[in-house]
Order: sequence, then C-alpha cells, then structure tokens
Amino acid sequence: MAYNLLKGKRGIITGALDENSIAWKVAVRAKEEGATFTLTNAPVALRMGKIKELAQQCNTEVIPADATSVEDLENLYKRSMELLGGKIDFVLHSIGMSPNVRKGREYGDLNYEWFMKTLDISAMSFHKMLQVAEKLDALNEGASVVALSYIAAQRTFPDYSDMAQAKAMLESIARSYGERYGRLKKVRVNTISQSPTRTTAGTGISGFDVFYDYADMMSPLGNATAEECADMCIVLFSDLTRKVTMQNIYHDGGFSSMGISPQVVEKLSK
Amino acid sequence: MAYNLLKGKRGIITGALDENSIAWKVAVRAKEEGATFTLTNAPVALRMGKIKELAQQCNTEVIPADATSVEDLENLYKRSMELLGGKIDFVLHSIGMSPNVRKGREYGDLNYEWFMKTLDISAMSFHKMLQVAEKLDALNEGASVVALSYIAAQRTFPDYSDMAQAKAMLESIARSYGERYGRLKKVRVNTISQSPTRTTAGTGISGFDVFYDYADMMSPLGNATAEECADMCIVLFSDLTRKVTMQNIYHDGGFSSMGISPQVVEKLSK
Amino acid sequence: MAYNLLKGKRGIITGALDENSIAWKVAVRAKEEGATFTLTNAPVALRMGKIKELAQQCNTEVIPADATSVEDLENLYKRSMELLGGKIDFVLHSIGMSPNVRKGREYGDLNYEWFMKTLDISAMSFHKMLQVAEKLDALNEGASVVALSYIAAQRTFPDYSDMAQAKAMLESIARSYGERYGRLKKVRVNTISQSPTRTTAGTGISGFDVFYDYADMMSPLGNATAEECADMCIVLFSDLTRKVTMQNIYHDGGFSSMGISPQVVEKLSK
Amino acid sequence: MAYNLLKGKRGIITGALDENSIAWKVAVRAKEEGATFTLTNAPVALRMGKIKELAQQCNTEVIPADATSVEDLENLYKRSMELLGGKIDFVLHSIGMSPNVRKGREYGDLNYEWFMKTLDISAMSFHKMLQVAEKLDALNEGASVVALSYIAAQRTFPDYSDMAQAKAMLESIARSYGERYGRLKKVRVNTISQSPTRTTAGTGISGFDVFYDYADMMSPLGNATAEECADMCIVLFSDLTRKVTMQNIYHDGGFSSMGISPQVVEKLSK
Repeated sequence: MAYNLLKGKRGIITGALDENSIAWKVAVRAKEEGATFTLTNAPVALRMGKIKELAQQCNTEVIPADATSVEDLENLYKRSMELLGGKIDFVLHSIGMSPNVRKGREYGDLNYEWFMKTLDISAMSFHKMLQVAEKLDALNEGASVVALSYIAAQRTFPDYSDMAQAKAMLESIARSYGERYGRLKKVRVNTISQSPTRTTAGTGISGFDVFYDYADMMSPLGNATAEECADMCIVLFSDLTRKVTMQNIYHDGGFSSMGISPQVVEKLSK
Repeated sequence: MAYNLLKGKRGIITGALDENSIAWKVAVRAKEEGATFTLTNAPVALRMGKIKELAQQCNTEVIPADATSVEDLENLYKRSMELLGGKIDFVLHSIGMSPNVRKGREYGDLNYEWFMKTLDISAMSFHKMLQVAEKLDALNEGASVVALSYIAAQRTFPDYSDMAQAKAMLESIARSYGERYGRLKKVRVNTISQSPTRTTAGTGISGFDVFYDYADMMSPLGNATAEECADMCIVLFSDLTRKVTMQNIYHDGGFSSMGISPQVVEKLSK
Repeated sequence: MAYNLLKGKRGIITGALDENSIAWKVAVRAKEEGATFTLTNAPVALRMGKIKELAQQCNTEVIPADATSVEDLENLYKRSMELLGGKIDFVLHSIGMSPNVRKGREYGDLNYEWFMKTLDISAMSFHKMLQVAEKLDALNEGASVVALSYIAAQRTFPDYSDMAQAKAMLESIARSYGERYGRLKKVRVNTISQSPTRTTAGTGISGFDVFYDYADMMSPLGNATAEECADMCIVLFSDLTRKVTMQNIYHDGGFSSMGISPQVVEKLSK
Repeated sequence: MAYNLLKGKRGIITGALDENSIAWKVAVRAKEEGATFTLTNAPVALRMGKIKELAQQCNTEVIPADATSVEDLENLYKRSMELLGGKIDFVLHSIGMSPNVRKGREYGDLNYEWFMKTLDISAMSFHKMLQVAEKLDALNEGASVVALSYIAAQRTFPDYSDMAQAKAMLESIARSYGERYGRLKKVRVNTISQSPTRTTAGTGISGFDVFYDYADMMSPLGNATAEECADMCIVLFSDLTRKVTMQNIYHDGGFSSMGISPQVVEKLSK
C-alpha cells in the first residue's frame, strides 16, 4: 500500500547494501510514497553490494561517500541537491561497523584504535552528516533525520561489544543535534531502536540467531521486520510527525517493555 | 492533507468535548483519512459539550458511556460494531479528571475517595476498555489502541497533583495489556505523551499558562498542538506502525529530552 | 558488620511478617546500626506472623495498623513518637497485596473492586503514610522514607498482574511527594526496586520460581537477597545519601540493565 | 562523622586537582572511613594542582598517569598494589575534558579530532581502566568501580556540547563492563549522575552559573555538593551496596525527576 506520504520530498539514504538491508527497504518504500532521493554507501560497500540495481529500480544515482569523511559528505549533499533539484527533506543514517566485533575481540580485550573506528563510523558519522548539512544549509525547514539504533544502547548484550557505546553515542547525538537543529530550522532528529533484523550486516554478529530468537520469543508481536522498519522510517519522514524530535523510538514488537514472556517461561521451564 | 491512511478502518473515539479537544481533532482527521467511527463521552460531558455537532460533521453517532462503567462500555462496543458493521480497528482513550485538582486540594491534603475517583476515571477506565473489548472479542487482529498521557507520569509538576499517579498507571496498563493483547491478537497498545495543550480541560489546571509557556520555551520545536497530536494518533492507528506496542511516545517538540534551553537561560538571566 | 550508621535515629518499619520478610531484615539491621523504631503490620498479618518475636528481639513494640486507614496511621505516628521520644527519622513502606493475584484472576478478567484494593493497599497507603506524617509534622528535617518496589513498574511480567500498576503508582508517589516534602522539610522519598526475593509473600505468586531463576541467570551478580536489600535500606536511611530523592534505585544484581546474559543464551541454545 | 565503612579497603582515586574537586573530597572521606589508596592525575594537572598537599594529608602517594595511556594505567595499578600491599577494592574515575568546550567551539562547528579527544579522555579512559584492571587481575572480588557522570547523558544542555556524548558513552561502558566484570569477579561498576558542582573544572563551562542556579531552583533539596557526592561514593565503595551494579544513580537533590518547580514557576511568572 502506498499513501503519497512523501510526495515531493527529497532525501538521502545511506547504508543500502543488498535487498536484506533496512536501507534498501526504505528506498523502495520512499519511492512508492512519492519521494526522490539519492543513495550512498562507502566505496568498499559499493563494490560488494548490489546498490546499483537498487538505484536503477529507484531511478536514481549512487553517490559514493565514506561517512567518516567531511569532504565526502559535503560532496554527497551538494550532488544530491543538484540531482534532486533542491534542498533535502529527509536523511536516513543506517551505518554501523565495529572492527572489534568483526575480528572477534572480546570486550575485555578491545583494540582501542578499532574502538575509535567503531565510534567514528557508527556514531560520529551521524554528527558529521548533521554538521555538514547545517554548514551547507542543505536541509529544508522541518526536514527529518533518522538514524537506526538498537536497544544495546540501554541494556547489555555481551556480543554487541563496543557497538553498545556507539549506539549510546548515536542516540545522544540525536538529542544534542536535535535541540540545535530544531531551534534553528525546525529540523527533527530521531533514532529508531529496531528489533534484531536478519540483514547481511546483522547476521555477522556471533550468536545472532540465539538473540534473534530470544527477542522474538520475548516480543508479544514478534520481532519487527526490515519492511516494517521501513514503514516506520516513512512515518518519521512524513509531515505527520513534525513535533517528534530528540526521541529514540522503540520499533520492536514490545521487546523493550518486557520483563519476561510466557514463551520464555515455557522454554526455560523445560 | 489526507492520505487514506485509515481507509476502511472502524474506530471508537472517546473524550471529544468541543473543538479544542484533542479527541475532536482526531475525529476530524480520522474522517479525512477514510475511517468510520463512533464517538462517546460521559453523559454529563455530552450535555455541556458540542459533540453532537462533531457527530454530524463526521456523519456518525454519539454513544453515551461512563468509562468507569463496564456495562456502558459493553454497550459502547456492541453498538459501535453494529453501527460500523464489524469489529473495531482503533480506539482512542482521551479521558482524565481529578476531583482533587478541580477542587483545588493540595497534594498534601488529598481526599482519598476523590483520589480513587481520579484513578478510576483516568486510568482504570483504560483497563476496562481493553478488558471489555477482549471479552466481547470486539477488536480486529492488529487493531491499535492509544491513550493520551503526559510527562507528569515521569517527572513532577506539582500542580498536576494526583493526575501524575493516574498517568503513571495509565502508561503501566498500556505495557501490561499490550503484552496480553499483543500475544493474543496482535493488538497494539500505546500512549502518547503530549505537550501541554490548550484544551478546555487542560486550561482548567491552576498555573496552566506558566507551564504551557515554560514547556514551549523549553521545546526546540515548541509545544505540539492538538492538530499535530491528532496526526500522531492517525499514524499509530495506521498499518505503518504495526510493531510499535507497549510504548509511551513523546509528542512534545523535544521537551522530554531537554535539560535546559537557551530561551530559558535567557529568561532566567535577566 | 555494623557501622553505627543510624545511631540516634528513630524509625517506623512496616511489613515484617516472619524472618523471610525484607522488613524483618531491615529491623534487625537497623537495630545493629543503632536505631530505635517501632514495628507495624495489619491486624490480620499480626495474627499469622511472628512479628512479636521480632519486637522482643529488637526491644520494641508492635503497633497494629491497617495502612489503608488514615486513623490507624495517625495512631501509628503518635504512638511511635511517644514510645521513641521524638519525631521520626526514617520510614520503611513494605506493603503490597493483590486480591486478583491471590485469587488467580487473569489480567484479562480482573475484578475491579479488587483492583482498587490492590492500589489502596499497595500504593495509596504510601501517600497516606506521607500525608499523615506531614499533617502531624511527625518527621524530622532530612528524614528518609523508602518504599519497596519491583521492576514490573517498568516492564511486563504477566503473572504480576495488577501489581504492576500498583508499583508504577507507588514510584510515582515517591516522585510527587518527594518534591513536596523535600521542598518543605528536606525529607527524602525513594523506592528500591528489588530483585525477586524468596519471602513468604513473594513466593505466593504463581510461577515465582521460574522468574526467580530467570532473574538470577540474567543478573551478573545474581539476585539480591533480603539481607542485601536491608543493607541498601540502611544506606538510604543514613546521612550519607541526603541528596538522593525522588529516585527508584535498582537493587538487583544488574538485572535492569541486561538485554541478554551468556547464561540465558546457553540455556536457550540447548 | 566517620563509620569505618572502608576499613581495610584499598583504592585508586583519579581526578583530584584542588580542594574544590569532588575527587579531593572523596579522598578525604575515604581516609576518614579507614581506606588506604593512591592518587593519580595527568602530568599536566599535577603541575597545576595541589594534589601533593592532598597526598600528604592522606599519607599516600601520587602516581602520575595519563588515563588515555594503557601503559600509564598498567603502571598505576602495579604501583598501587605494591604501595597498598594487595589488590584494589575501589576505583574512582573522575576524568573529563572537552577541547571543543574549552576552546568555545559551537556544537555545529565541532573539530572532530578534538571530539575524539573528548571521548578518549572522558569515556574511553574508563574502559581502559577496567580492561587494564582485568588483564592484571588487579581488583579484588566484589570490588566497586565508580565514575562521575552528568544528566547531560540523558537530556540536552546545549553548552555541554560533545561532553554529552562522552557521558552517554561513559554510562554505557558502566553497563557493558559491569556485566562482564560482575559475571567474572562480582565487581560492581556504576556511575553517579551528580548535580552541577562548583569545581575548578565545572565552573569553566560557559553559562555555568545560570545552569547551576537553575538546577538549584529546580531541585527540591537543592544541588548536591561535592562533599555530599563524596559520601555517595563512599556508600557505593562500601559492602552495603554489593548488589548495585550497571546503574547510573542520580545524586542531584531530585532534579532528574522534576518537570517544573514552584521556584521556577515563580521566577518565570515575574
């Protein structure tokens, strides 16, 4: 179903890698809802992924950008405004990576350069996207900026390692920059705390299946899918949520408000 | 703007008193979005208010119901299903009243019978609406139930008095019944924590203007209006938020995430 | 170990039933720390319990009081001040009971009179203890009032039923009355959110063992015991926490900050 | 008043600069309570401050350490264990600095190298202190680690700038490492969210006086002082809080639970 919720809006969508990516689904849905937008990802991801397929399908272009590079982000905004014919109305930040997680370093044996990299890629890049936008005055009044987060920002999932700090920092940036950009130009900044999702990135985390299943058993509505997350993004990009800002919205089938579920009780009782 | 977000959906909207009511705006917007619904309020409110005008405008009926009466609620659901031709897809709970606040009793001098009345009207009524619905099997799978709340559930606003407890209880019911109804029928139950709003009820609280202005100065986007709150309700009733449940969503221009704002600093610096 | 932390302080301790009660342990520890205090419980609990033993051991008296009765509470404070020779420095509220839970009513089939009783006994009694104290000017400046709570106030544990609402309300009262009494007389009001505890009351809840074990597996330090909870109460009654107020302090071995634990992962992986 | 709460315990206290520092007060109180400990600060702070006076007063030594240097921290633990004659029972992390704040860079014009420095000094140093301790097995079972934080981790205070992210990350580390160290050795890790405090560091932030006064007006008990914060640290180092972990404890006179106070209403009403 499409509703024309983003008719006439221009956007930038980061982080689409393949058809399992949440960002991919957001692009598909944004197009259905009437938006035009550009796509971007890091050069290395572009080589591995199928983002060009997506660009074709959405009748748009891919602008390579390393989200940790201010220069690349400047280029991203400039090119996007050129291509789309005006300032930007919505931005999706869907970027995260931890070298420590990837290389299996335990939380008691972190490599601190990698930890900094985790923070730079997964959280500071969000500040950079906002600061560059502000400096270029690239966002329209009332624009909506959304980043994808995870409940590890609030609670400990040991395998999530230093990404927990990155997500806590990401959500904090949403609150800090949301104040600033809201005051200056009525721009909204929010994060969505999404259920564990079977994306190519997500499934790379060790023990992913167990905590996916656990979250699913614990959530009265089950885990939220990537498609459903895309719907939630559309909602936050739309004009129907113009006073929601500096929030972290749980999109998780109820997981975050659960203490214990009958399903988990049953499973543990055996 | 309308998007057909509620096309074919059937609802029940409580709490519309006059054109300042949030519930009134929700009704207007729900109609625009393609829903059919019934209206209800307590008999006494029906006499004072202009709800019949609204019913005419929305081409619907008013079903009187005291929300503390299980019988009245049973009748409300039964009549609504009859009139609308099927089970219910969305419910708005917008009901709150404190005799202690109304009669100016201080928080250190509460009348405990009135306190119970505050809880019964403002919070337990929400449980009753849910339990009656479940017993009558009156809600469609995936239905969405929303109650209006206020940040006094989390933080102290002295003039809000025993309504703080009512709102804390209301939000707790959303979490408890959300678990149950989500598991049983994928029904979502959420609360919206709305900015102070210039409704006929809201402005009755002593010192309302000061805390309205304070909230406005403190919120980077300013206070959310009743119209904007109605949009947020539509979003939660729609199919785009099917995995959001057991949440309290701040719809407040950023107020809940603020420590201090430059405007308040300026005002206090004088 | 005793430290003289409550030397010269006078208190009132509610809710001691038998030697498994948290309140019982608080009494024993308060005595060790140099306090004098009175004990109280509802008349019916007095008949069943062994509180007179405790009174003897602590060299004090039991003052029967139904905590829902303002009169009884007035008598409690007056007699306590008489017996102890002055105003009160600390109060423990350890009172909770749900007829719905006791009689096995499901959350979708609550008896609303009983629900009101749950609230009256488990939460409104806390307001009454504070309001009566204020009216009688029974608390010393800087006094400390603590109520025992549970994380069901924030997250759903289905078997906890309407007690979830009672605990949400209890914590809300701590915030509301804490503001008032803090401003007026520097009195602190807090709640402790304690691990599930094997008390005579606690173990009455259906499925207690499963969620006790689950909480224990989920908490890096394991569940907090009743003795440890007593220590935490002593700390909050002492002069070392004079600026902690309107807080809910998790005393739970880390449970509240956990997403998933390696032990639960292991158990679920089998 | 002293209670012997830390009798026989060995500690490490970072961050004492002069007699206004919270860490300085913690050292004085820890000595009164029977602990032995070492002091440390960055070499540059040692030159400016009067920490040697404190060391004399506490009959201990200062071990210079740059908290961002793993080597320095290794030396800190090794020397401390040597000097104190055994493993460590408590650690205070009281370290924070933002070059962006210091040099007056606005939040929309951050220097990203400095931002990284803010994080490294103010938050990652906490992980380093924990990881180094674990690798050296420098902490006794049941040891207590505390870091000082601020409510800017949850809510936006614009002048606090990138320190908001640092504090969010600091608190996240407490949750993550608290899980690990709790499971491995029953070590507790917590943060204290302290009122704005007139320390030499604190008062350097622009607009400090306004938000100090605002916080004071907003807190029913007034702002917590450095001495009171020291008491709270003692409590968390003691054996009376052995099951409190992974928590952020508000020590703020009630500020965090306030929506608006009568004093602020009065001031704004003029």
